[in-house]
Amino acid sequence: MKLFESELKVINIGLESFRQGLNDTGVKNVQVQFKPPLSQEAALFAKAAKFSARIEKANAKAMEKILAAKPALVGMGIALDVIPGMKKNLILHAGPPVKWPRMCGPMRGGIMAALMYEGLAKDPLEAEALAASGKIKYEPCHEHNAVGPMAGIISASMPVFIVKNEEHGNYAYATQNEGLGKVLRYGAYSPEVIERLRWMEKVLYPTLKDAIEFLGRIDLKSMVAQALHMGDEVHNRNRAGTSLFYRAIAPAVINTSRDPGTAAKVLEFINGNDHFFLNLSMALSKASLDAGRDVKDSSVAVVMARNGTEFGVQLSGTGGKWFTGPAPVPDALYFPGYTKADANPDIGDSAITETNGLGGFAIAAAPAIVQFVGGKAADALNYTLAMYEITAGESNIYKIPALDFRGTPTGIDVIKVAKSGILPFIDTGVAHKNAGVGQVGAGVLSAPPEPFAKAFEYFAKNLK
Amino acid sequence: MKLFESELKVINIGLESFRQGLNDTGVKNVQVQFKPPLSQEAALFAKAAKFSARIEKANAKAMEKILAAKPALVGMGIALDVIPGMKKNLILHAGPPVKWPRMCGPMRGGIMAALMYEGLAKDPLEAEALAASGKIKYEPCHEHNAVGPMAGIISASMPVFIVKNEEHGNYAYATQNEGLGKVLRYGAYSPEVIERLRWMEKVLYPTLKDAIEFLGRIDLKSMVAQALHMGDEVHNRNRAGTSLFYRAIAPAVINTSRDPGTAAKVLEFINGNDHFFLNLSMALSKASLDAGRDVKDSSVAVVMARNGTEFGVQLSGTGGKWFTGPAPVPDALYFPGYTKADANPDIGDSAITETNGLGGFAIAAAPAIVQFVGGKAADALNYTLAMYEITAGESNIYKIPALDFRGTPTGIDVIKVAKSGILPFIDTGVAHKNAGVGQVGAGVLSAPPEPFAKAFEYFAKNLK
Repeated sequence: MKLFESELKVINIGLESFRQGLNDTGVKNVQVQFKPPLSQEAALFAKAAKFSARIEKANAKAMEKILAAKPALVGMGIALDVIPGMKKNLILHAGPPVKWPRMCGPMRGGIMAALMYEGLAKDPLEAEALAASGKIKYEPCHEHNAVGPMAGIISASMPVFIVKNEEHGNYAYATQNEGLGKVLRYGAYSPEVIERLRWMEKVLYPTLKDAIEFLGRIDLKSMVAQALHMGDEVHNRNRAGTSLFYRAIAPAVINTSRDPGTAAKVLEFINGNDHFFLNLSMALSKASLDAGRDVKDSSVAVVMARNGTEFGVQLSGTGGKWFTGPAPVPDALYFPGYTKADANPDIGDSAITETNGLGGFAIAAAPAIVQFVGGKAADALNYTLAMYEITAGESNIYKIPALDFRGTPTGIDVIKVAKSGILPFIDTGVAHKNAGVGQVGAGVLSAPPEPFAKAFEYFAKNLK
Repeated sequence: MKLFESELKVINIGLESFRQGLNDTGVKNVQVQFKPPLSQEAALFAKAAKFSARIEKANAKAMEKILAAKPALVGMGIALDVIPGMKKNLILHAGPPVKWPRMCGPMRGGIMAALMYEGLAKDPLEAEALAASGKIKYEPCHEHNAVGPMAGIISASMPVFIVKNEEHGNYAYATQNEGLGKVLRYGAYSPEVIERLRWMEKVLYPTLKDAIEFLGRIDLKSMVAQALHMGDEVHNRNRAGTSLFYRAIAPAVINTSRDPGTAAKVLEFINGNDHFFLNLSMALSKASLDAGRDVKDSSVAVVMARNGTEFGVQLSGTGGKWFTGPAPVPDALYFPGYTKADANPDIGDSAITETNGLGGFAIAAAPAIVQFVGGKAADALNYTLAMYEITAGESNIYKIPALDFRGTPTGIDVIKVAKSGILPFIDTGVAHKNAGVGQVGAGVLSAPPEPFAKAFEYFAKNLK
């Protein structure tokens, strides 16, 4: 009977909604954060524990390579000429493999835009028919050393940046960012979209190509390091990265462009688009993470990518195998006139930035992003702090001022994710679910559990 | 006797050094921050309290004007042509009035550089003799609607930015920033210093002047607001401000410059100097604060400025009167080979940024600055939070991400300073104490008490 006479002191473990009644009636209570593990296969956790020394050594090796990467922008070229395995009838897309019938609206819209841009279709109807005909092949950007934001469409004639990892010699490729509004990567395919792509090919590309050749190389790694000190996490916020790139490229553009009018227009285009740097931060991340691939027994993720239907993960220790599950719909700030009901599930290769310790993992450097979805500066710190729980290391270069210049949490360890139930935190743009509309918002989300559970189980089963 | 039997619990008020013995012997204690008021004249505090309603109304009026200011860069010109009261034999300097015999080394060095630049002396010896001859007149920049960093020297032929407060119609002027190393504003006068000044007059100035005319105006207020979201406090850190200015001006420079080579050199000069924006943030602050001048009964500071010998303050309610005291030597990160013994006392008009709620008052936006003098990110937050104790308002435009976008503490109320003993926190560069050397470090400091005590006493005595 003593229990009911004395003051009640409650410890609530896990689901916070159970606290509400206690809070409402003024009963003292303490919340213990707890999430169940992602996998129910206890034997696999035991097996991973048994192999832990070997896994840790493998992860250290993968991390050393990822952190030592020296990604620099060294040139530009046309996709068909420079991307390994690129073909005229091949279209690269974001995320894990997906064929036309299962593709989401914005990816279909992006492909239709690309087919019209390539001159293979004269209008949307023709483009849709061709896209579904079987004459066009589809493969993930990630399987061609490339990355693309949102729909992530790369077709044969598109110009791409060439990023070289100068430490390990591998390359990564990404298109030029189109800006906001009606753009291919969000699934729009109206004439203005195609026209802009042509201008980007005929004017923007040759101008930037010459300027980059004039400079020889642009050190992207130090640029990202500085951008993190300037309020960017280089995924949803790229104002500083774009500014620093602009400062580096402008004098070279003037020195090499065919006429001052062209130089001014090219710089105005970049100045008008604070996301211009995104594609470069993605290529930098891709070039860094590819160096950490194929380390036997490493449980570190080297890819997180979404095709708008599924969310896919690849691990260093499991080669080219994709682990997938349904892509969730982000919490977002929606543009006027749109709601979550309009939103396509999460899409794009841009989660390569989080995989590389940037984006949502570095959100403590960019509290402005949390604020626009209703959060506080302290939430931004907490999101980043939580990511240290599931990462194998910390960046030696990318550092967060508000955390006393601690390195960003880097190298997602799928065992830690599976054990803790803490899922990677991702910043993202939001596309309308229908082809032809475009962007409807920007927000944040946690990665879905299924790909990580599958990746962990496959990884642990195959340890021997 | 009971006191000595029970556990000792100590409250320590004021000087923290008294706690050391308690801490060393493990005695529980609590520290209460307390500083004695700056003025011992209790009757004056009582008088200020009696007039408090009227003072508050006056301060609200001054704050409304300061916060409503709309400073924009609208043009450039030669000092003699555009600065009110400028003359050929007049040299403007930083801080409160000071004549040659009492001037510090770096101010003397800057004046010698200016006399050689003007062609009035052919070498340092001749310049020094002329400077001391009585033929050259000296007046504060602040008395000519102008501001200058460090020595703050403006001579007749120097080009200046013209910043207009578009809300109230007043103007402010500042020179172009020379960059780091051996530069006039830190008291250097070697041939490379004079040569750079000539290039700035013959190439940089006409190029920027044409570009600004082409654009019509550049909105400095929104640029500073953005820079605070990008790790700047626009006093000791201007990387973001410089980047944003560069992005705005570059296409105009290309469109208007006489040839691409000149355009490229001008942009490379700005790109090579992350402090280029400082002089603009100072002129923006001056244009804003001058709008708040001469409000009867207002105890809000409209100037804090140092000439390297004395630190001076002006209040809205006390007209052009200067309140001064000895300038302190900053805590700083010294460049290799230099120590605090080499440092000149605090110098420059750049504390106009703090007076305007920026710089040290906004240091929570720029933790990198605190780190280089050995502090933590939390210290940066605390410095800014302390400034809310002594300010009359908060900015409606300049906001700090890490404080959930709270407006910066703005408008130093000298009564609050005198009562609390909390002194304005200032970021600063450090000049060598001898003429001809240049910068030896960068750091932070609290303003000295004397000018604020004097300002408060004069203000309170004259209330009627």
